[in-house]
Amino acid sequence: MEALEQQLNFINELERLKAVYRQALVKADDNRFENSAEHSWHIAMLAQVLQQYADEPVQINRVVSMLLIHDIVEIDCGDTFAFASQAELDAQEENEIIAANRLFGLLPQTQFIEMKNLWLEFEAAKTSDARFAKAMDRILPLLQNMKNKGGSWANHTVSKSQVLSRNQYLQGLAPKLWDYVCQQINIAVKEGWLDDH
Amino acid sequence: MEALEQQLNFINELERLKAVYRQALVKADDNRFENSAEHSWHIAMLAQVLQQYADEPVQINRVVSMLLIHDIVEIDCGDTFAFASQAELDAQEENEIIAANRLFGLLPQTQFIEMKNLWLEFEAAKTSDARFAKAMDRILPLLQNMKNKGGSWANHTVSKSQVLSRNQYLQGLAPKLWDYVCQQINIAVKEGWLDDH
Repeated sequence: MEALEQQLNFINELERLKAVYRQALVKADDNRFENSAEHSWHIAMLAQVLQQYADEPVQINRVVSMLLIHDIVEIDCGDTFAFASQAELDAQEENEIIAANRLFGLLPQTQFIEMKNLWLEFEAAKTSDARFAKAMDRILPLLQNMKNKGGSWANHTVSKSQVLSRNQYLQGLAPKLWDYVCQQINIAVKEGWLDDH
Repeated sequence: MEALEQQLNFINELERLKAVYRQALVKADDNRFENSAEHSWHIAMLAQVLQQYADEPVQINRVVSMLLIHDIVEIDCGDTFAFASQAELDAQEENEIIAANRLFGLLPQTQFIEMKNLWLEFEAAKTSDARFAKAMDRILPLLQNMKNKGGSWANHTVSKSQVLSRNQYLQGLAPKLWDYVCQQINIAVKEGWLDDH
């Protein structure tokens, strides 16, 4: 198969990410569930707008690319709720590697390797680019829930310590954003949107 | 207002792009209408995957940023169908400038100017980055419609010459993609998805 055909097959397959729904709610659209494609767009915008708060050097273009591709594996695996059990999260990890090989594998070899490596870097969350990308992926649901009376937290009885732990990438990397997150979490507890433990 | 607060207001406002619906249909999700946020994600991916076909040098990171922001004005203006009348398209242009000032104007001054200039560059479609971005925005609906028995074309009785004209950015800039588009349009005419004039 020639390269262009492989690339267009991949692009056609991406259409399916618009049918993968998350637990987050889109308040602006009658509180329907958010899908992973529009979520990926939103966090790519978030990273561009907030890049100045990274205290370590980050290459914003790599961060944006990571965020655009980070959920593509969900086409095969679906979205696992952030506060699912550890057993569910472990099972998801294995399935996502199989999905990455199938989906990025639709592309010509060089693009396959590049995109899979970028995704693995995001998942490993060791480089500053990946940690900043992870932080963006995790701060957005907090912003959404704070504007929506607790949103997905309130629907799933989530606790303060769970949200703090999810956002800890910010602590060393973007202290100003970490402070903001801590303040917001305290407000959420007072409002009764998060359990206080 | 401090910078972070302005930036987060902007991010919160972006949520509304998920409620702006286009004429394009998402076949993978029961043929519901596509929204402009998920569309923006998809064409940013398309640009990254097809960048090798640009015959002029393009800075892919600028192209991706343009595509991520190009529809934000629709939060205030809504989406105008690609094949609307010239009068409708002209009215849309004026409204979009007002929208750009209000929406990008939520950001701190430097980011406001940067983002508005990037959007104006996209709209003017003079630089190779902007023309490649425009081409990506226009080729995706064709790919979607070809996989969906004519999709939005068939619903609106669109003609071959209209689709050729919309995709003409490709002709000089990415000849291999232009050839592909011409072939696809001929197939669409044969299938009766596009009028033959």
